[in-house]
Amino acid sequence: MVEAARPRHDMRNDVPSLVIDSERLMGDLRHLAEFGQVGSGVHRRALGDVDMAARAWLLERMRAAGLEAEIDGIGNVYGRTLHARRIVIGSHSDTVPKGGWLDGAMGVIYGIEIARAFMEQCVGGDVGLEIISFSDEEGCFSTLLGSRSFTGELDATVEEAVNEDGLTLGMALERAGLVGRPRLRFDPEIHLAFLEAHIEQGPVLENQGARVGVVTAIAGLRGWTIRFVGRADHAGTTPMALRADAGAALCDFAGRFADFCQANGSTHSVWNGGAITLLPGAHNVVPALAEYTLTVRDPSQDVLDALGAGVAPIASAVADAHRVSWARADLFALAPARMDEGLMAEIEAAARLHGVEPLLMPSGAGHDAMVMARHVPTAMLFVPSIGGRSHDISEDSDERDITLGAQIFAEAVSRLCQNL
Amino acid sequence: MVEAARPRHDMRNDVPSLVIDSERLMGDLRHLAEFGQVGSGVHRRALGDVDMAARAWLLERMRAAGLEAEIDGIGNVYGRTLHARRIVIGSHSDTVPKGGWLDGAMGVIYGIEIARAFMEQCVGGDVGLEIISFSDEEGCFSTLLGSRSFTGELDATVEEAVNEDGLTLGMALERAGLVGRPRLRFDPEIHLAFLEAHIEQGPVLENQGARVGVVTAIAGLRGWTIRFVGRADHAGTTPMALRADAGAALCDFAGRFADFCQANGSTHSVWNGGAITLLPGAHNVVPALAEYTLTVRDPSQDVLDALGAGVAPIASAVADAHRVSWARADLFALAPARMDEGLMAEIEAAARLHGVEPLLMPSGAGHDAMVMARHVPTAMLFVPSIGGRSHDISEDSDERDITLGAQIFAEAVSRLCQNL
Repeated sequence: MVEAARPRHDMRNDVPSLVIDSERLMGDLRHLAEFGQVGSGVHRRALGDVDMAARAWLLERMRAAGLEAEIDGIGNVYGRTLHARRIVIGSHSDTVPKGGWLDGAMGVIYGIEIARAFMEQCVGGDVGLEIISFSDEEGCFSTLLGSRSFTGELDATVEEAVNEDGLTLGMALERAGLVGRPRLRFDPEIHLAFLEAHIEQGPVLENQGARVGVVTAIAGLRGWTIRFVGRADHAGTTPMALRADAGAALCDFAGRFADFCQANGSTHSVWNGGAITLLPGAHNVVPALAEYTLTVRDPSQDVLDALGAGVAPIASAVADAHRVSWARADLFALAPARMDEGLMAEIEAAARLHGVEPLLMPSGAGHDAMVMARHVPTAMLFVPSIGGRSHDISEDSDERDITLGAQIFAEAVSRLCQNL
Repeated sequence: MVEAARPRHDMRNDVPSLVIDSERLMGDLRHLAEFGQVGSGVHRRALGDVDMAARAWLLERMRAAGLEAEIDGIGNVYGRTLHARRIVIGSHSDTVPKGGWLDGAMGVIYGIEIARAFMEQCVGGDVGLEIISFSDEEGCFSTLLGSRSFTGELDATVEEAVNEDGLTLGMALERAGLVGRPRLRFDPEIHLAFLEAHIEQGPVLENQGARVGVVTAIAGLRGWTIRFVGRADHAGTTPMALRADAGAALCDFAGRFADFCQANGSTHSVWNGGAITLLPGAHNVVPALAEYTLTVRDPSQDVLDALGAGVAPIASAVADAHRVSWARADLFALAPARMDEGLMAEIEAAARLHGVEPLLMPSGAGHDAMVMARHVPTAMLFVPSIGGRSHDISEDSDERDITLGAQIFAEAVSRLCQNL
């Protein structure tokens, strides 16, 4: 290991490092991937039998590490040391349908391995650890469910949320035997910070040749369904000038809005027209209705608002030009989350201690850290994704990057335990 | 009635006019609409029980008119006078699903009413009439089936064509009791001309305030499925510059191809992007595959070819710009059909005799006349469609336009019977 030349944070180099066991880490990660294995990927939908079996196993591993561990009333698995003040390390162990083996699972196993090292290496001080695998981050019932429960952001109506099998959350909790259990609650006196490690799920680290990323902010998200309504005329007999073509309006809008985002967004802005529906959808009928699913993301709320403000004037101009009407329905409005600079600095310093220069970057995807950051200083570490692939069975990372990330994360945790 | 000022065709004004019975015409038309009635529309799919019941009734009406009538082995109903040389008048009595009551039915009833008037009014000369309701014009099994059978354009494989219920044409013919019956065949020595009356199915006559149209040509059609193939990246984590967005490519193509058609088409050119599919079709995934159903129509083959030639360079440029690949599959390639100028002139002259100035216009939709025109001099008369609506239960025409059209058509027929 090469010591970084000049850490940008005041570092106490006398702090004993936590050393993780790479083989044990990889063993646990591979074992967890067997729950719901689909080829090289995993299908582990929140609160289903497979997810609950994995959570029972995680509980066992936490207890084996010497932690006081439980599963709470929403499905969060947690294990903690006996300290009155604790750093929370966590992510989630549920997956999207036929998802990847790393995604949230890596961050959970990082937590367990770091807790094991913490217990074994008898780290002194009065700050301990609390490891959490949050429930239903992927929104099988409701996105970021476990962390929103932890931070008190849920109301009772969430129990009516329905998964892809038509099961309500309330019914799923009953099936999983979780009804009546207390729900873990965030307490600012106890929980001093939140740290989440995650695969990047994008191509940026790989493209830049960086082995670890430190997240600066999690992009906010705005999403809409934009609907254009024209008239279903015969595509042979109706002159172009007499048509009200909703499909042509949609395509025109898509192009103009992309140009607008290019001109008015930041270098981190991204946008996506993920779905299009044309009705009636026949070759010989002018589309009467066209629906566009549009999202924009940026780490800055101001940029997000500026891009969102483009929708109406562009849609109106396009609708006028094509003699159609338009309307929109809001799909999402998630505020960006800034990461804590002090915590970021600790992770950066830890990376440099291990000889790598971290890349500072925003996260385009949402994470439990997005919820946590509204309540407590929060930071995230990213591990490169091979080819940027994620949410798919092809998702993977280089084992050397996974273990290096864990060691850097452990380094940061051990320093924070002394410094907080 | 006002005589036209200056007929452009040499007219024999001593020819006795055939006079149709408007009430009888409308009565038959309304009676036919009861077969498969759906509200104000009709659902009469080719060779189904309802279509065959309607055909049996048409056969009866033809026989009652004194015609020698039969249903042939493909479902064509025909009735003829005993003359060795005949003018063919026809259209079709099948409909699209939940279609309109006029569509092809009007042209069939025109034929029957004109034949009745012909028989009653003892028109002399050696040219008679043959009235046909062609089978499956709408392509329940195969588009323009009856007229293609009549003109010998079918091969045996058509019997394997399948309708929306999964029935093959061969099975449907058997169910309808048509197997083994001879099929009516076009003979250039016998069949001197083909005349088809039809509702316009578009808004042009109404917009121009014209009460009757004379078709100059039936537009040809080219159609393709254009497919763009990119990569399904996470819509939050993948920077715009690293995406291969098939959906954005499709929208870009749609806009550029429309501009190209606007610049390079004729005043009669029309084009339509009737259907779009994006896969996987999720708000948070960059579209990996985008499929566009595109058709172009024009009465000139040269224009059609010029527009078709735009597809590849535009798709290639768009694909390069969006880092995707593209491919196309041919859907349709139907050549335009020019109408016969002599026959057109007779209909124009007949219209002027009845005090209306006909609008010369191309037909954007296909008709049995498109097939017939490849074999025999052919012409079409159009009656205005209210609001341009067609292929829908809202399809309608003003009764005065329907009866005026029939009288003009009868006038043209009586003149042609003397002149051919």
